[in-house]
Amino acid sequence: MAAVINKENTASINAQRLWDSLMSLAKIGATPKGGVCRLALTDLDKQGRDLFVQWAKEAGCEVRIDEIGNIFARRPGLDNSLPPVLTGSHIDTQPTGGKFDGNFGVLAGLEVVRSLNDQGIQTQAPIEVVVWTNEEGSRFVPVMMGSGVFANAFPLDETLAQTDIDGKTVGDELRRIGYAGTTPASSFPIKAYFEAHIEQGPILEAKDTVIGAVTGALGQRWYDVVISGMEAHAGPTPMELRKDALLAAAQLISRVNEIALNHAPHARATVGWIACFPNSRNVIPGTVRLSVDLRAADDEVLTTMDSSLKTAGEQLQDEGRVGVEIKQVVYFPPQPFNNDLIDSVRGAGKALGLPTLDIVSGAGHDAVYLARVTPTAMIFIPCKDGISHNEIEDARPEHIEAGCNVLLRAMLEQAGHARNGQQA
Amino acid sequence: MAAVINKENTASINAQRLWDSLMSLAKIGATPKGGVCRLALTDLDKQGRDLFVQWAKEAGCEVRIDEIGNIFARRPGLDNSLPPVLTGSHIDTQPTGGKFDGNFGVLAGLEVVRSLNDQGIQTQAPIEVVVWTNEEGSRFVPVMMGSGVFANAFPLDETLAQTDIDGKTVGDELRRIGYAGTTPASSFPIKAYFEAHIEQGPILEAKDTVIGAVTGALGQRWYDVVISGMEAHAGPTPMELRKDALLAAAQLISRVNEIALNHAPHARATVGWIACFPNSRNVIPGTVRLSVDLRAADDEVLTTMDSSLKTAGEQLQDEGRVGVEIKQVVYFPPQPFNNDLIDSVRGAGKALGLPTLDIVSGAGHDAVYLARVTPTAMIFIPCKDGISHNEIEDARPEHIEAGCNVLLRAMLEQAGHARNGQQA
Repeated sequence: MAAVINKENTASINAQRLWDSLMSLAKIGATPKGGVCRLALTDLDKQGRDLFVQWAKEAGCEVRIDEIGNIFARRPGLDNSLPPVLTGSHIDTQPTGGKFDGNFGVLAGLEVVRSLNDQGIQTQAPIEVVVWTNEEGSRFVPVMMGSGVFANAFPLDETLAQTDIDGKTVGDELRRIGYAGTTPASSFPIKAYFEAHIEQGPILEAKDTVIGAVTGALGQRWYDVVISGMEAHAGPTPMELRKDALLAAAQLISRVNEIALNHAPHARATVGWIACFPNSRNVIPGTVRLSVDLRAADDEVLTTMDSSLKTAGEQLQDEGRVGVEIKQVVYFPPQPFNNDLIDSVRGAGKALGLPTLDIVSGAGHDAVYLARVTPTAMIFIPCKDGISHNEIEDARPEHIEAGCNVLLRAMLEQAGHARNGQQA
Repeated sequence: MAAVINKENTASINAQRLWDSLMSLAKIGATPKGGVCRLALTDLDKQGRDLFVQWAKEAGCEVRIDEIGNIFARRPGLDNSLPPVLTGSHIDTQPTGGKFDGNFGVLAGLEVVRSLNDQGIQTQAPIEVVVWTNEEGSRFVPVMMGSGVFANAFPLDETLAQTDIDGKTVGDELRRIGYAGTTPASSFPIKAYFEAHIEQGPILEAKDTVIGAVTGALGQRWYDVVISGMEAHAGPTPMELRKDALLAAAQLISRVNEIALNHAPHARATVGWIACFPNSRNVIPGTVRLSVDLRAADDEVLTTMDSSLKTAGEQLQDEGRVGVEIKQVVYFPPQPFNNDLIDSVRGAGKALGLPTLDIVSGAGHDAVYLARVTPTAMIFIPCKDGISHNEIEDARPEHIEAGCNVLLRAMLEQAGHARNGQQA
């Protein structure tokens, strides 16, 4: 018995309760500057997980933990043989993280469950809220660990054996905090996965928009570059006899920037890390190491950018002053999201009268792995000045509310629903 | 009774003895890679000083120590009321220093004394060999400490109170190693100061030349630069909304290089030190700090270069992405050497049939301070690949010999001499 979607559905979430929950969770690992430090699989992470599990159970959910510590809170549907509609994100943070990154997506999911309870709405398919383990990767690599194992991006055994800087393993730390579950850490049939998240960028704010309907995630290629010149005294060495690795690096950094500008508007290119040797003010740099991060929405564009980077390195080398070595260390292909689900998000934004914009995610999210195994979409809301991974990360209560209402609508549309047990 | 200069003088030095002395001194603080680590005012520096003093006394010199630890070894002349002809350099080294930097100039001076003794040559004016304290500045700042105090570039009291990273003072360390002398640490009448030194650059070697007649030292302006942008996520932040401090730094580094090229061949410009914050591969750099080192032979040129640097900073700032703060932290004016003494060096090279070239010193040397208080010149010899401040620093025995013979001739010309007590 499939529920019919009610186009005039007026279900809405309790904005104050969602905000209060966000603030309560933010107390666990709160920093003096107003941020949160709650690294994956620490005592604080355990406290945060325990609070979520307590709230989920209070909301009538069944909770299960999988082998990589992902937490699934299930609100049964009218037909529990149907694959669930899943939502969630993560609650681990960066060392100087904020209150909203990840936490918003998890607690928005919980608020959907609570609101459905309040309003006596039953869904045809079950609804599940998930907390993915270690999205940030600050303490253990790789990033997006829980969703990555779930989507079979990396093997469970190797992942459990990853160590932090003190040599503690993921597996031991999961056991220690009581989150080494028995549910297999692998994907199961899912109707749809939605993830609500702060944008972590400045676009929605700059365009005075409230909802970003995320059409997919940029592909990424990361590189380690080594530029080898010859260190020499800055005073006695004439300009024409120099092999200045930092000057060559400067030329490459400018070129990297041009590569992104040549593929506007969705291409991005960043040199975020640089190390100069011997790094002494009166010595011509002999070696410079730097990172390059290229991103694009289209894999062909990303391949072209990769070629341009290599050409730039070869040109520098051909000038005869320095050696240039470019090694790719990370590759994520561009990940488009599911068109039907993106339409659900657009439609929910429109129905609620919220300024809504298609947007591409430049950052990685658990949703990027989920999209490999199930129909997926994301809902972005603005964050202040586009800042995240920072204790001053901030989001406006009305945007939190709007994002959660869009999530509610989109999930109901996918799950099918009935008020008070009746078809709506 | 002034001695007449003998144009056919055939006095020459003992190359093997000079080489052996260099190798003996290099054993004190020898490193496994063939270099020397003998930081100023350490136990090893004391051993090196003691060896020099022993050798100088064995060569008949009177030794005196001044208040900043400079060692003067005096070989009396026929007329000891005349101001001496002085030569020397330093024996402290960088932590990964070589066998020749400084040591060559000191032991070449000692070899001049020994050779005059061997060949029974008396000089009209006395000859002195000096070991300047802490030229390198590795353990205590400022660099060129002994010669700087001597030339009144900085006050004795403040200099004695300078501390190393363990909080030990120059004054205490001088007392501890027995080199806190009583002779006033200030300049006295000197006929001429010569300093023989490895070039520490690649020019003589590139031009297949043996002797550099140093016409002066480049002026230097050093700066601390801070570029302030805004750190942000590399993924979600579009290129047009970025305030990338490292990209701006790259543009400035290229511009700094052009500033030197615009004033070829004697101008130099170097960014040797850079620090990027937060220096994370997927974060757009928010702040970059870097050093700029500008050098030129002419003070007007150096002033123009200073203006160009400031203009480059203002242009970057005017583009509206970043703030640029440029602060000058060091200024040495260009220091021309004495024309008569430069002629002595040129003439000695020519008389000995050695390929000789005028050259400008790009590095600082004790001679640069001496030139403020007395007629001064320097004699450069090639070093392998222009490398110094490195354990692989190397110089060829025939160049060592040639440089010392030029020093002998030039000093004799200034001191006036007689063989076996007779006027030559």
